[in-house]
Amino acid sequence: MTISAAIQPLRKEDDHLTSRQARLDYRNGKTGSTAGVASGFVQGNLAILPENLASSFHRFCQLNPKPCPIIGMSDVGDPRIPSLGLDLDIRTDIPRYRVWRDGEVIDEPTDVMAHWRDDLVAFVLGCSFSFEEALLDEGLPIRHIERNVRVPMYRTNIACASAGPFAGPMVVSMRPFKPAQAIRAVQITSRFPSVHGAPVHLGHPQSIGIKDIAKPDYGDAVPVEPDEIPVFWACGVTPQAVIAAAKVPFAITHAPGLMLVTDLKNKDLAVL
Amino acid sequence: MTISAAIQPLRKEDDHLTSRQARLDYRNGKTGSTAGVASGFVQGNLAILPENLASSFHRFCQLNPKPCPIIGMSDVGDPRIPSLGLDLDIRTDIPRYRVWRDGEVIDEPTDVMAHWRDDLVAFVLGCSFSFEEALLDEGLPIRHIERNVRVPMYRTNIACASAGPFAGPMVVSMRPFKPAQAIRAVQITSRFPSVHGAPVHLGHPQSIGIKDIAKPDYGDAVPVEPDEIPVFWACGVTPQAVIAAAKVPFAITHAPGLMLVTDLKNKDLAVL
Repeated sequence: MTISAAIQPLRKEDDHLTSRQARLDYRNGKTGSTAGVASGFVQGNLAILPENLASSFHRFCQLNPKPCPIIGMSDVGDPRIPSLGLDLDIRTDIPRYRVWRDGEVIDEPTDVMAHWRDDLVAFVLGCSFSFEEALLDEGLPIRHIERNVRVPMYRTNIACASAGPFAGPMVVSMRPFKPAQAIRAVQITSRFPSVHGAPVHLGHPQSIGIKDIAKPDYGDAVPVEPDEIPVFWACGVTPQAVIAAAKVPFAITHAPGLMLVTDLKNKDLAVL
Repeated sequence: MTISAAIQPLRKEDDHLTSRQARLDYRNGKTGSTAGVASGFVQGNLAILPENLASSFHRFCQLNPKPCPIIGMSDVGDPRIPSLGLDLDIRTDIPRYRVWRDGEVIDEPTDVMAHWRDDLVAFVLGCSFSFEEALLDEGLPIRHIERNVRVPMYRTNIACASAGPFAGPMVVSMRPFKPAQAIRAVQITSRFPSVHGAPVHLGHPQSIGIKDIAKPDYGDAVPVEPDEIPVFWACGVTPQAVIAAAKVPFAITHAPGLMLVTDLKNKDLAVL
């Protein structure tokens, strides 16, 4: 699998950009990881599907809100999602896309103008960058950010509820914490249900089908020290893995780690 | 130590009593564990100290709110605490007391009329019965209740902040949960800061100085299955252990497990 091959470490030099400026840069051809870009603004995972598959995918998200929290959605054939940015054009504003045919990536363009069709529906799903900002703001250290690598992600034995052709296991991301920090992390991320929310598991990787914590299925391994607990959150790679496994005739996603930067503020997602 | 020797299993037959009726029964000489009595009402730990020690103890509680959350307090020499019950008399309404001199229990009477003095101040501290009710209401199983034994409690290497003569380690109670239940338990108990609140630790007993989870310092051992996580909450035995260790000339506490039943409702303690 190459799903997360393109996730890049943090780009701190672009943290001061506004969301609108970041989108304009990408629209004009700039590319690269969005990690750390436009600090404070919500970033999202993208899934674009033809209308005849979109209702099944929508139901899949509804049934699996922890890995697939919808934060925005377009009308059929409409490239705009005004609730995420008045000027936003979903065909151009992401630094790099993946175009899928029958489960294979056939193109990785920096815009999808050439692939756009009148029957497409765009879904934007919450992403862990938002809750990571909240964890950092509360002083919790995040191992993969400290090490400037990608978050480790694992396929689990937790089956998502299926909808039409969309089915498969939940993918989770892992962050190690000392026990008291793990408790605090549960409290903090519980406030953010639209960006994966509270962890789905902690402490016993083998209970959710993870055989070797040192060998993530996506991203990079990070060490879990003997006095730490591995804490697992539902991951936005899940829908992309499910779309790939369904081998649908046509789909567009973002390239992993190169997300949609929206005008929403992370702080505004807190339910408390 | 015999601090918790008298904690008894649940008395389900008295769960329908009102708090006022339960107190009247105890006032009239009835005794026995209050676990499960007057379901829905808040129960509290008791500590009574002479005025010259009360300010230090009050500060100890202020500095250590997780093990010592104050839910009520009397005026000097006044046996009433109207905020916990209009008719409440702290000298008679607890099923059994412990009277301490120089760190030793010298009497275990069913009232303390003979020991009352005009310089005494009563403190009532929140107790885990309240958050256990919330956990049970949410469908989480509690091992020691299922087994009808006392909760296992442990002295830790977490030092309480000291105040005057009051110092010592935090005592914690332990409840084993499957990982997803442990996450839910953090969320539920976070809503109840006045009854110990969120756990203080999970997963690595040795990190907080617990050498053998099968050998609690107070209460009864319960098994922790291989796919479970031991979750630790600050425990109301802490102030009693601290009072014993301080060898203060005079103090009165409840007998462990035989608590003050108040007119507060557990549900009303939820901050969210």
